[in-house]
Amino acid sequence: MAETSLIFPAAEFRGRAARLQAGMDRGGIDALLLTTAADVFYVTGFLTRFWESPARPWFVVVPRSGDPVAVIPSIGAELMGRTWIAEIRTWDAPDPRDDGIGLLAETLADLVPASGRIGVPMGLETHLRMPLADFEALKRRIAPRDVVDATACVQRVREIKSESEIDRIRAACMIAGRAFDRVPEIAGPGRPLDAVFRDFQSACLAEGADWVSYLAGAAGPDGYGDVISPAGPRPLSTGDVLMLDTGAVRQGYFCDFDRNFAIGPPTDAVRRTHAALWEATEDALAALRPGLRAREVHRILCEALTRRGTEPGAGRLGHGLGITLTEWPSFTPLDDTPLRAGMVLTLEPGAIVAPGRMLVHEENVVLRDTGAELLSPRAPAEMPVLER
Amino acid sequence: MAETSLIFPAAEFRGRAARLQAGMDRGGIDALLLTTAADVFYVTGFLTRFWESPARPWFVVVPRSGDPVAVIPSIGAELMGRTWIAEIRTWDAPDPRDDGIGLLAETLADLVPASGRIGVPMGLETHLRMPLADFEALKRRIAPRDVVDATACVQRVREIKSESEIDRIRAACMIAGRAFDRVPEIAGPGRPLDAVFRDFQSACLAEGADWVSYLAGAAGPDGYGDVISPAGPRPLSTGDVLMLDTGAVRQGYFCDFDRNFAIGPPTDAVRRTHAALWEATEDALAALRPGLRAREVHRILCEALTRRGTEPGAGRLGHGLGITLTEWPSFTPLDDTPLRAGMVLTLEPGAIVAPGRMLVHEENVVLRDTGAELLSPRAPAEMPVLER
Repeated sequence: MAETSLIFPAAEFRGRAARLQAGMDRGGIDALLLTTAADVFYVTGFLTRFWESPARPWFVVVPRSGDPVAVIPSIGAELMGRTWIAEIRTWDAPDPRDDGIGLLAETLADLVPASGRIGVPMGLETHLRMPLADFEALKRRIAPRDVVDATACVQRVREIKSESEIDRIRAACMIAGRAFDRVPEIAGPGRPLDAVFRDFQSACLAEGADWVSYLAGAAGPDGYGDVISPAGPRPLSTGDVLMLDTGAVRQGYFCDFDRNFAIGPPTDAVRRTHAALWEATEDALAALRPGLRAREVHRILCEALTRRGTEPGAGRLGHGLGITLTEWPSFTPLDDTPLRAGMVLTLEPGAIVAPGRMLVHEENVVLRDTGAELLSPRAPAEMPVLER
Repeated sequence: MAETSLIFPAAEFRGRAARLQAGMDRGGIDALLLTTAADVFYVTGFLTRFWESPARPWFVVVPRSGDPVAVIPSIGAELMGRTWIAEIRTWDAPDPRDDGIGLLAETLADLVPASGRIGVPMGLETHLRMPLADFEALKRRIAPRDVVDATACVQRVREIKSESEIDRIRAACMIAGRAFDRVPEIAGPGRPLDAVFRDFQSACLAEGADWVSYLAGAAGPDGYGDVISPAGPRPLSTGDVLMLDTGAVRQGYFCDFDRNFAIGPPTDAVRRTHAALWEATEDALAALRPGLRAREVHRILCEALTRRGTEPGAGRLGHGLGITLTEWPSFTPLDDTPLRAGMVLTLEPGAIVAPGRMLVHEENVVLRDTGAELLSPRAPAEMPVLER
């Protein structure tokens, strides 16, 4: 039991299950079938990097009333046994004859009447983390029970973070913030970008990250053409802008923000664009309120950049954050999701410096009734300069 | 073009595509639709940690003849443009109206006749990395084209590693090996396990890992009850056995092996069990040959342990390795897969020390025509002892 409370007390998880069940009730869903690391962790607290192995599926069933049931490979029984979940059904995986499908079908039949509906997340930003052929076999075995989309049911609950969750995300942000403060020790003219990436990950670990699930970045004169690449061996050189964007993880919760550094004095174009990004972020921080639509945040950022004579970058300009590096909603012109208090969000405006060259700036916030509260330590208004 | 060859020259990827196409020809599959990070990397060389974000699906289509086509979010166009893939079709994701499905359906219609069959991996150890509702919509849009299981087609090709791939996996093993050599600097009586985990990941990075996707482990008297947990804050104490199991990544390729350390002098039971595990591994190393079935390796390891008076652990005793932490086949009593030269495999015997207490030992090998060649530096026959 001691280990359970390392991350959260059982009451936190009971509250989550109750909120999911309220949504199931409204949606006429009799049980949720969850298969991803994020959804399983959310409901149970089961936290392991073993998801890196695609060999075995893992299932959690949340019935409309009563406690969730874990249907998992026996290799996970001990760790699941340390969570709040009391009912854990296991099989010896991987089993090419039946890799848990019989046991899962029985469990669903126990919990859901034959006329019932089983919800599975099937919409945007979801995937089914089990073999597709096994899912088809499962549907046949649990018929006439219906399988329906439960994306909204899960997302409307997960998107509102509890204070305990907000504390964990803030802790991850503070860790990355301290690592960014150490970049002057790590990066400078002549230093290869891949060495900077290695040292930055070690700095995140030294500052308290449990692991570093994401680091991307780039460096180039007047900015970069790409923000998702791993590092190459090219040394940083004077005139480059270095960008590091990290998703460091602490107790299962991510931060996701970046910082820019000028290698030697920045050009006027870089200075001007960075100032516009920083100020556009201020505008958005001041404007964020529950009730705004995600697409309105996109518009606020774009207008703030345009007003300052800067061309906004394409793509989304921010998103949700929490148990995964990115969560819904998306700050694009197309996302109608209403913002609600308790959402943790990134503001991520990008702007074009020159053809094929951009800068991206990012902060993490929690939305309160009264507006945005920063979780990441605010970036300096002027880009730090790294000299030899 | 320079960046392409950072990992492999285009000829490596052309060979992979040709081998997949030969399998498609035999299986009557007109195009493969690939959606996971591993399959996309395998065919294209597209390597990014951006897969951590569940927001966007990514697609690669391998037609029965001709070059693969990437159908991807525009945010990845620049990075995909540095691979050998010439035809890259993009859309602005995430798009709640149509997140790439229209473009993907058009692409499949361009490449596959209406009477044709599209292969998707659906079997054991696979999953579909896109929203399920979008996959259902895709099937309707590409009808009457059939969607069929292509697991075997992909697995029979990916399981045979090229010499270039073997070099990369060996490099990852050597990195982890050097990090394990540094454990005496990191771990010892009184050191909290979570601090050991952080420092070990930093050691992997310092020794050349691009990132550390997996670290699990445990510590306890006479072994451990669990091998997939993250670390807690409990300090190591004399009498514990510490196990660290890592999947460090270099240029997209994993190692996966563990090492055990005695905190102070080991008990006789630990010493005896460790010796049995080490010797059972020697037996398997000597016995491995192309043509053996995966289940026969399981039997060899179990018999070797039993012969030495040790009770084998439950579960699989090894598996494939490469682009993901674990790949097929599985050394279980049920896996009939024939071993073939070029497979990279882990030998991972576990044994019971006392009720609820086990030890696990692991090495990585490549199977040659003549037998096993070690890729991991062989563990010492006697467990290293860490004193204060």
